[in-house]
Amino acid sequence: MPAATEPLSRIRIVLVAPSHPGNIGAAARAMLTMGLGRLVLVSPRRFPDPEAVALASGAAALLDRARVVSTLDEAIEGAALAIGLSARPREFAGRVLPVRDAAIEAIANAAHGDIAFVFGTEMSGLSNAELARCAIVATIPANADYPSLNLAAAVQVVAYELRVALTHGQVWRAPRFAPATADEIEALYTHGERTLVAMRILNPDMPKKLLPRLRRLFARAGLEKEEVNILRGIIARIDQLIARKNP
Amino acid sequence: MPAATEPLSRIRIVLVAPSHPGNIGAAARAMLTMGLGRLVLVSPRRFPDPEAVALASGAAALLDRARVVSTLDEAIEGAALAIGLSARPREFAGRVLPVRDAAIEAIANAAHGDIAFVFGTEMSGLSNAELARCAIVATIPANADYPSLNLAAAVQVVAYELRVALTHGQVWRAPRFAPATADEIEALYTHGERTLVAMRILNPDMPKKLLPRLRRLFARAGLEKEEVNILRGIIARIDQLIARKNP
Repeated sequence: MPAATEPLSRIRIVLVAPSHPGNIGAAARAMLTMGLGRLVLVSPRRFPDPEAVALASGAAALLDRARVVSTLDEAIEGAALAIGLSARPREFAGRVLPVRDAAIEAIANAAHGDIAFVFGTEMSGLSNAELARCAIVATIPANADYPSLNLAAAVQVVAYELRVALTHGQVWRAPRFAPATADEIEALYTHGERTLVAMRILNPDMPKKLLPRLRRLFARAGLEKEEVNILRGIIARIDQLIARKNP
Repeated sequence: MPAATEPLSRIRIVLVAPSHPGNIGAAARAMLTMGLGRLVLVSPRRFPDPEAVALASGAAALLDRARVVSTLDEAIEGAALAIGLSARPREFAGRVLPVRDAAIEAIANAAHGDIAFVFGTEMSGLSNAELARCAIVATIPANADYPSLNLAAAVQVVAYELRVALTHGQVWRAPRFAPATADEIEALYTHGERTLVAMRILNPDMPKKLLPRLRRLFARAGLEKEEVNILRGIIARIDQLIARKNP
């Protein structure tokens, strides 16, 4: 794993008593898509299981490395920070953060040791006793009328937020070519204005909003050198058409 | 639905040719957890299907209301903005944004009309031709070695970011006017191409890179309706100049 994503290797995803092996596999896949590798299962009902492998898709090796333990205490042992997921932690006395803030906090603390994100069972989530073992509760913003994310979907959101917290959301970007200089862009506007007047689209005594609108459009795009050349070529051709018409 | 979440009612989630009914159901559940309600299916392999209902859990009513169409064009018809999901849109000429920024842009534009988020098929995602129908490509930050999110997991991340964009993270944005529709933009390109040929700037037998470069430039800007009108006015004036020269 590249050094830049090293903090992700400090993250443990802990699933407490998952009922469906498919969810375990789907959670493993969700983890790997974001660069997480450490899965801990507390008393899973069925594991290992072919359904988990099927849903893990390309992340089956992550399942093979999963730790299986019998208590939450074992799962979070040695971690510097445990963060529990809960939609409505009514009885919880500690800090409650939106998952985005919890992910930022986790990445910031990963230098100090392992961070455990703890997910409860599909039907009822984490119990109050389990939440009490966590320093922070993370909440995923959701529809109050139907807040019940699938377990693997919740793992996906947490893993995604961890990756964004680490990388500041860097993604593949379209290639860009050399930008035009301010002088080149001004020369384009000067040329374009002259031609629009000659075309009788623009009345120099009543310019209205046309030029500001065009400037705004091209400023939003961020013109490249070659694009300025293309546009000036088109304008020069219009100049020729006008000149031949009025010799 | 409360007024505050009204922009979410403008969001269509479009799944192109989903293979697995379970993914359709899980996507519906992911949508409802974040308050989205409008699902459009383009040529699903199996739908309706009991597996979709099973995976939808409490969101079965959302499946019942899903629209099934046979082409992507039908799915995005009438939308003010189409945003395609893709991990590495190498051939895409328009704007590529991290999903967080795309969600903010979608919510900002929801006042102008429907916004379609378009997801490709499980195995291969959106084709280049399908991406070309989208003004923006949204990319989910992911592990470069294994970026393959499950379809419903990708829907969950997008729906989550839409909800967060709506409920927090409100920052001042430059004012935007009504965006041009995909149809208006295509009509502009068709008109522009015809005129460039008449101007003898473009040789239709050897078109080179001129049109793709112009498409790329305007796609980056994200054209507004009024800008399309301005550009078509300029092109129409060129048409007049050409016609008078060759009576």
